[in-house]
Amino acid sequence: MPEPLVYLNGRLVPASEAHLAVYDTGVVLGATVAEQTRTFGRRLYRLEDHIDRLFRSLRYAGIDLSLSRAELAAVSHELTAHNARFLDDAGELGLVHFVTAGEYPSYAAMTGRPVRPGPTVCAHTFPLPLGRWARAMGAGARLVISAVRQVPPQCWDPQMKCRSRMHYFLADRQARLIDPEASPLLLDLAGNVTETPTANFLIVERGTIVSPPHARILPGVSRAVVMELAGRLGIPIAERDIGVLNALNAEEALFTSTPYCLLPVTSIDGTPVGDGRPGPVFRRLLAAWSAEVGVDIESQILAAAGK
Amino acid sequence: MPEPLVYLNGRLVPASEAHLAVYDTGVVLGATVAEQTRTFGRRLYRLEDHIDRLFRSLRYAGIDLSLSRAELAAVSHELTAHNARFLDDAGELGLVHFVTAGEYPSYAAMTGRPVRPGPTVCAHTFPLPLGRWARAMGAGARLVISAVRQVPPQCWDPQMKCRSRMHYFLADRQARLIDPEASPLLLDLAGNVTETPTANFLIVERGTIVSPPHARILPGVSRAVVMELAGRLGIPIAERDIGVLNALNAEEALFTSTPYCLLPVTSIDGTPVGDGRPGPVFRRLLAAWSAEVGVDIESQILAAAGK
Amino acid sequence: MPEPLVYLNGRLVPASEAHLAVYDTGVVLGATVAEQTRTFGRRLYRLEDHIDRLFRSLRYAGIDLSLSRAELAAVSHELTAHNARFLDDAGELGLVHFVTAGEYPSYAAMTGRPVRPGPTVCAHTFPLPLGRWARAMGAGARLVISAVRQVPPQCWDPQMKCRSRMHYFLADRQARLIDPEASPLLLDLAGNVTETPTANFLIVERGTIVSPPHARILPGVSRAVVMELAGRLGIPIAERDIGVLNALNAEEALFTSTPYCLLPVTSIDGTPVGDGRPGPVFRRLLAAWSAEVGVDIESQILAAAGK
Amino acid sequence: MPEPLVYLNGRLVPASEAHLAVYDTGVVLGATVAEQTRTFGRRLYRLEDHIDRLFRSLRYAGIDLSLSRAELAAVSHELTAHNARFLDDAGELGLVHFVTAGEYPSYAAMTGRPVRPGPTVCAHTFPLPLGRWARAMGAGARLVISAVRQVPPQCWDPQMKCRSRMHYFLADRQARLIDPEASPLLLDLAGNVTETPTANFLIVERGTIVSPPHARILPGVSRAVVMELAGRLGIPIAERDIGVLNALNAEEALFTSTPYCLLPVTSIDGTPVGDGRPGPVFRRLLAAWSAEVGVDIESQILAAAGK
Amino acid sequence: MPEPLVYLNGRLVPASEAHLAVYDTGVVLGATVAEQTRTFGRRLYRLEDHIDRLFRSLRYAGIDLSLSRAELAAVSHELTAHNARFLDDAGELGLVHFVTAGEYPSYAAMTGRPVRPGPTVCAHTFPLPLGRWARAMGAGARLVISAVRQVPPQCWDPQMKCRSRMHYFLADRQARLIDPEASPLLLDLAGNVTETPTANFLIVERGTIVSPPHARILPGVSRAVVMELAGRLGIPIAERDIGVLNALNAEEALFTSTPYCLLPVTSIDGTPVGDGRPGPVFRRLLAAWSAEVGVDIESQILAAAGK
Amino acid sequence: MPEPLVYLNGRLVPASEAHLAVYDTGVVLGATVAEQTRTFGRRLYRLEDHIDRLFRSLRYAGIDLSLSRAELAAVSHELTAHNARFLDDAGELGLVHFVTAGEYPSYAAMTGRPVRPGPTVCAHTFPLPLGRWARAMGAGARLVISAVRQVPPQCWDPQMKCRSRMHYFLADRQARLIDPEASPLLLDLAGNVTETPTANFLIVERGTIVSPPHARILPGVSRAVVMELAGRLGIPIAERDIGVLNALNAEEALFTSTPYCLLPVTSIDGTPVGDGRPGPVFRRLLAAWSAEVGVDIESQILAAAGK
Repeated sequence: MPEPLVYLNGRLVPASEAHLAVYDTGVVLGATVAEQTRTFGRRLYRLEDHIDRLFRSLRYAGIDLSLSRAELAAVSHELTAHNARFLDDAGELGLVHFVTAGEYPSYAAMTGRPVRPGPTVCAHTFPLPLGRWARAMGAGARLVISAVRQVPPQCWDPQMKCRSRMHYFLADRQARLIDPEASPLLLDLAGNVTETPTANFLIVERGTIVSPPHARILPGVSRAVVMELAGRLGIPIAERDIGVLNALNAEEALFTSTPYCLLPVTSIDGTPVGDGRPGPVFRRLLAAWSAEVGVDIESQILAAAGK
Repeated sequence: MPEPLVYLNGRLVPASEAHLAVYDTGVVLGATVAEQTRTFGRRLYRLEDHIDRLFRSLRYAGIDLSLSRAELAAVSHELTAHNARFLDDAGELGLVHFVTAGEYPSYAAMTGRPVRPGPTVCAHTFPLPLGRWARAMGAGARLVISAVRQVPPQCWDPQMKCRSRMHYFLADRQARLIDPEASPLLLDLAGNVTETPTANFLIVERGTIVSPPHARILPGVSRAVVMELAGRLGIPIAERDIGVLNALNAEEALFTSTPYCLLPVTSIDGTPVGDGRPGPVFRRLLAAWSAEVGVDIESQILAAAGK
Repeated sequence: MPEPLVYLNGRLVPASEAHLAVYDTGVVLGATVAEQTRTFGRRLYRLEDHIDRLFRSLRYAGIDLSLSRAELAAVSHELTAHNARFLDDAGELGLVHFVTAGEYPSYAAMTGRPVRPGPTVCAHTFPLPLGRWARAMGAGARLVISAVRQVPPQCWDPQMKCRSRMHYFLADRQARLIDPEASPLLLDLAGNVTETPTANFLIVERGTIVSPPHARILPGVSRAVVMELAGRLGIPIAERDIGVLNALNAEEALFTSTPYCLLPVTSIDGTPVGDGRPGPVFRRLLAAWSAEVGVDIESQILAAAGK
Repeated sequence: MPEPLVYLNGRLVPASEAHLAVYDTGVVLGATVAEQTRTFGRRLYRLEDHIDRLFRSLRYAGIDLSLSRAELAAVSHELTAHNARFLDDAGELGLVHFVTAGEYPSYAAMTGRPVRPGPTVCAHTFPLPLGRWARAMGAGARLVISAVRQVPPQCWDPQMKCRSRMHYFLADRQARLIDPEASPLLLDLAGNVTETPTANFLIVERGTIVSPPHARILPGVSRAVVMELAGRLGIPIAERDIGVLNALNAEEALFTSTPYCLLPVTSIDGTPVGDGRPGPVFRRLLAAWSAEVGVDIESQILAAAGK
Repeated sequence: MPEPLVYLNGRLVPASEAHLAVYDTGVVLGATVAEQTRTFGRRLYRLEDHIDRLFRSLRYAGIDLSLSRAELAAVSHELTAHNARFLDDAGELGLVHFVTAGEYPSYAAMTGRPVRPGPTVCAHTFPLPLGRWARAMGAGARLVISAVRQVPPQCWDPQMKCRSRMHYFLADRQARLIDPEASPLLLDLAGNVTETPTANFLIVERGTIVSPPHARILPGVSRAVVMELAGRLGIPIAERDIGVLNALNAEEALFTSTPYCLLPVTSIDGTPVGDGRPGPVFRRLLAAWSAEVGVDIESQILAAAGK
Repeated sequence: MPEPLVYLNGRLVPASEAHLAVYDTGVVLGATVAEQTRTFGRRLYRLEDHIDRLFRSLRYAGIDLSLSRAELAAVSHELTAHNARFLDDAGELGLVHFVTAGEYPSYAAMTGRPVRPGPTVCAHTFPLPLGRWARAMGAGARLVISAVRQVPPQCWDPQMKCRSRMHYFLADRQARLIDPEASPLLLDLAGNVTETPTANFLIVERGTIVSPPHARILPGVSRAVVMELAGRLGIPIAERDIGVLNALNAEEALFTSTPYCLLPVTSIDGTPVGDGRPGPVFRRLLAAWSAEVGVDIESQILAAAGK
């Protein structure tokens, strides 16, 4: 029975056989850096930017990857091409890269086999659950200010995309107490807005798209696309501290993230953002993005939800 | 070919087949709580205390385990009994429990199979690498004050034993730049001493064993044993803030952790602790501990190193 | 038509005429210190302790009250005796004292009259809404960890009972998003548990009643009663940092506050505390308290709710 | 005897009868948002900007005002027109808006009347005490760095104009120990300059007007005017962190606030700013402001002081 | 002309010739640790405790002193004996030890001579200016809460007595703006009371002598004497966080420091402590101290002031 | 024997006689502000900028210097002209200015002479140890992230160049444990990059020279030159927060400081910056700087090292 493939430590294996030993440091320490890319029309979008960011995370974490950027890109394309065959007609793929620090020697001794040297490198795909964002694409996403704070730069640099995400897990859990569909917005230790566990957060204030300062958040590839599209559309952009008052009084608020590109945020702690409906900046950006990728992003999501 | 077994989600599987899907939340989020227990004379030591702490971590993280404490204990004993057969004559087992939040649904869709509900529960063993601590048991461990800080309670409670440990990975890496055998000592955001990535840290100051306050550190089972033994031996104990000056001027400094019980720390940032040799409080505690478990802990470690 | 009286700046006025000018600093700055005392059997309980704390707050705030402690006590007793007549048979009174910094001169000029010198001093009563706590007395109160943090000592000392409580208002509002009956638990800037907007928070951990350290919380008169009763009952007490993990894993958790004395807390962020029901330490303390005041506190509350 | 009117909860009442019940949340919690506007030539200046900011504060605090912006503006103009009649010939009015969360139900029960639903809304005026700023307009205001810090965004957003101002009360009190005419300058918890209890603080550094970043201070309407006038005059403006060293070494320092528009600050902690006299940027801005409003602001203040 | 001697780098030199090269690290970096001891009846008091603390500071700073504790003690006694001859009849000596990291090589090259290796070690004396404390001994010292905060442990451990004291210099300067005789009380970054630039601070609260926790302050030798005397007198002692409210409401407040042993603090930010006069705990401690050293400490100070 | 001169308190003295009394506040408190200037071709470079910064530090510290800027400049030139004679042919001078708060009165009494009023003012020179930077100029400097943090603005403004540098001394010591030639990079309390004990730190990111925000670092004169040269060369410059991830992933990293102007940083915590070699921005800036001063800076350094 044919199935999607997964790249794992130099080999392509069937998806159902893609697993990590329980003594992998990715399991033992969460010492893992990762990326998530998607396709449009089944072609990977901005793969180079994602690979660049992966290499920046790796350098920060001090993990040496044996593959070059080009080799990783080649594997990614090959995997995508193969696995796209398993999609529904309208489907798109998400592509995940992750790299752990390899096997944890003392635990690995359980099997009696020698420790595999070097990091654990994996690339796998999944069908983008596009329909999952249909409600938020139409009515807007809902946010709650989390009691859990972002891990500060004194511990690790928030610009690294890593998988030590217990605080995100806790924040998500608390947000769902309020509203099963809500996402938590994390503040930093000074009380400024940062991001959600899975998306960059932007607001529109007096016509300007405002992002928190880059050094306190993940430097999102989608966020960079927003900035680029805004530039083309003549929408001013700025990086500055965002307080909760700014977020609640924004003309619009936005999530931007790889799987869905852009979502309107229409409620924060139960208070509507703007008039509580997706706004014109959101519309213009999404239209420009759809044009750039040759896919009507919103229609694709709504279609996937059977709407 | 017979091999050790691993408990994984209700089944016992051979060690070489114990693995997590790449879409397990333990891999994707590091949202994992864990424990590590050891044997003395191949019998699990203070298993109940470890299981208690595991359940405290689980309740904090909001993960519901389907197993009761008693069931988990039974599995643990069974596993230990089976796997001890694969040890060398003088060997001891480490027993690891970990629980993740289960499969990450969107990634799990890659295989087309339904998502396995509930958490991922694993118990596995490994031969304790006792010889690895022989040098430190004799000459003392070496510490460096880390540039990386402990994740603060605003993000998650440091009393939870979790596996989002990127900061530990980074701290270990930097410590090894100074000295391949050094361990990093992490300060909290206020600059007080907390712990190392794998051990609680204690000092002896004017004859009293001093620990950092409990709420800022992992409530170590071995640390509790130290307190208990100290009580029996009439050595005063106290919990209070420890500054770096206190650590550098301590009469003795100690690591306490499950695998080796107790190690003397004889150097911090290149400065000797006390006279730079294991001290009398260390000796008395280790002797009492050896008596309690019926194993000469130091000899066992030295023997394992062939000394 | 007779009505309760209010003490206001040296005079007793009918309740319906007890008001502050819109230019009082209590309105303009929230620069107000306050107390809340209650009756048992219509006699004021621990009035001296409340007046003591009021004077401590006043000294900290630098507000000079023209009344002595004895004079304020006399007024309080007189007011209580008079106003108790308006209660239902089973009713009890709450007695509020508050002192503001007086009139705000520039705004006061609006009337053309001279500014009244000195502070604004008020004592008023209200029928204790005892029935309001019947549900929580039976099934336990519900807590959520608030995204809003306690104002730190760098701004003002949390031991002062003051009425600049915007953060409490915000925290209450967010808690009610989760659960209309939930109270928010505020953490301090280091992530430790402090208190709720209206109650001190205590936990029972290994049989010991634990409170956060005194310097970070309001030194509650009811909290002091708990400590006193615990002493008599032989229940150990301790002051130390409480992390969220401690709260979630406590054997019991308690609110203590003047109006209801003691309430069991049975849920934190949706997770049951202990077995999710009021516990034995709560029962013993409440019984002792009832004995001390000659009133069955729980029955009084349930009766008030018509249960 | 005719007197000024006050708008209070939908009614216009004589100033001497404008008061809040002692059980209003504005008194009980300081949970009040507010604005202060002034007239020039008895016409309200930038009323819309103040009402905008009021609505931003209300949305942040989660208080729903039944009035629209237009209605509130209409009331404001009506009130101003009426109350201006009571001014001296040269007088100007200050107009205060404040909104509290309404009556505090349990305390309100003291009167036996039903709780008035909804917020408490008030607008009142006062004769601007223009003469009070004559000394500072001529010789410059004096500042002291306060030991009290600004309430951080973790507690509430400093961009909200609220009346939980105990820290301001404490800071003012300490400043007056040094100098009865000094104002305190509050730092944030990181040690950066923020503002005073009643004014935004600006410095001139190498010819540029510098303000602390917007998210840490009240977004002053007068501050916005300064920025606007500076733009017209070709004076560069910037937002960036201001350290105490910058303030002490500034070419000029300025207060900007509604009642007096702009004051020179000529001394900080006893050290002269610049040459200790009002500087040219102050002069140019004040002249431009006077031109914009058709009133010589300095002369009006000096005249009011009889100078 | 005979004059006092100074110990400097192994030699005894006349006081007027005791100086450091401008390129000494004590001048260039303030990288100096120090002690201050005094005589009673011209005999050094608790010299061993001061030398112990000096060695603790040296170990923390990583400076190796060539002298042993005994050698340093011998030099200290010799110097004291010699220099006491220059005192007035009733005089006492202060003895200062300081150790710098030695010469700063690049600057030292200015003379063309080789760099002197090793640290700079100095011991010198001065006539204790006893009369200077007469006013405070009688009427009490005055404190102001400083806008300047204590350097946090993240930078260096406050338990080290070092001479990088710019913050103390700034705090003293600001305190004198308020009152030429006031001392500043520094808070830590969390807003808790620590100490003054030259004294430990203690309060008496419900009969107990309370000190801030040891790890945040200099472990004063005089403070240890207070604790010892209190123990003998049966006065309870405690270490816990002291908020500003505690200080302002203390029954008594105290400075303790080597030169004057103990002073009553009778005013904080202009508010009297207790009844504004030296209190009974102060009296009892000072009497016990006088008995211990065989000198009436207060009389000696008053006599020195000619009172 | 002729020797260089030192300016000290109004007099020119031979270098070997330039010293401070042990009771100078520069020795006692480290309450010293300072500057360091250098010559190119034996002419002082940007002396006015250094004197300006000195006066800014003095004003912040509240130390009044009796000399005017012009007088201090004149002395500086005179000293430089005289002392340059003692240089080797290819030598250059460093010129140090420092000002302390003067004599510490109580200690000064040791000599029986009257206290010298006013500050201690010193200017001295030293032969720039140019050869010392030859290795770093060629192969690049090495950095380690320090466990010691920068003193925060709550204690003193980091823009003041002062000599209370114990934290720098501690950071240097720890860095040398890792690598005898490494410099420590200090983070601020929020975890952002600031500077090293002796240099400003800059990175090149996407072609832009990035500096940490000015208010958190010493406003380096050399840093200002870099900005000026970059402006001329058309290299974009920016001030923004730099995280450790940014530093590790920079295209280039740079030290800039008076003695050597500019050094490439090629390694951080053992990880190469860029390709681990000096980069093109460094080359262009150094060439421009050499052109501006008429000295080939790199050749001069290499020549001094005999390379």
